[in-house]
Amino acid sequence: MKETHSRSDCPINYLVELLGDKWSLLILRDMLLTGKTAYGDFLTSKEKIATNILASRLVSLEQAGLIAKARDPANHRKYIYSLTDKGLDLAPLFVEIVLWSGKYHHVPPEREAMLRMARTQKRSLIQAIRTGEQQETQF
Amino acid sequence: MKETHSRSDCPINYLVELLGDKWSLLILRDMLLTGKTAYGDFLTSKEKIATNILASRLVSLEQAGLIAKARDPANHRKYIYSLTDKGLDLAPLFVEIVLWSGKYHHVPPEREAMLRMARTQKRSLIQAIRTGEQQETQF
Repeated sequence: MKETHSRSDCPINYLVELLGDKWSLLILRDMLLTGKTAYGDFLTSKEKIATNILASRLVSLEQAGLIAKARDPANHRKYIYSLTDKGLDLAPLFVEIVLWSGKYHHVPPEREAMLRMARTQKRSLIQAIRTGEQQETQF
Repeated sequence: MKETHSRSDCPINYLVELLGDKWSLLILRDMLLTGKTAYGDFLTSKEKIATNILASRLVSLEQAGLIAKARDPANHRKYIYSLTDKGLDLAPLFVEIVLWSGKYHHVPPEREAMLRMARTQKRSLIQAIRTGEQQETQF
């Protein structure tokens, strides 16, 4: 895990330094909420991440200990990416983002069920996200 | 409130587009967790934001409806900044960030009390942050 110079020892700043950009949280979203594991799958998300940015962010996320990279057992020329415990432990944060955005922004119809669950059964939703039971094909 | 073209209708992307940078969450932290309201006070935070970046982010946060700007009644040549309900409603998100960073990163001694409260009395902490009862001089 790379240790770089921090601007401060503030816990908020810690997250901002790791994830404060336009893409890192979206890659983690794809892994956590849609179960994507392959490089090519991240490229298909709606926000259209560029391949060089994706490659660079995957390295940063791995260095930060949020994701792990391994050879795909089904195809040894490929890699699969998975969340570490540190990455999975962002599930409550993602649920709060869904709740906040759900209050202040248009929610697409296919997200309404998750928003309802976040409002009424937050703890169960977090658990289902962590275990991969709550996944969407696209987010 | 400015409406710009969004990359997608995803609720996670909504937050990333508004706050996915190296400074916006720190400015909101200063308002929410330390009660800062004045331009000059944001400049004194440990991460040392540059004045041009601060000015630009304050405009973005105001356009996004997260903060409001008003003349300081005590000095009409100055402005004070305050959080809107939309900004205050980020309190649960900040508490989750504190919890996550507290688990995976060094916590400075002066943050331990808040971390303990986040772990054992999350709901009370969120309420105290919203009402301004839980504030630090520096974060």
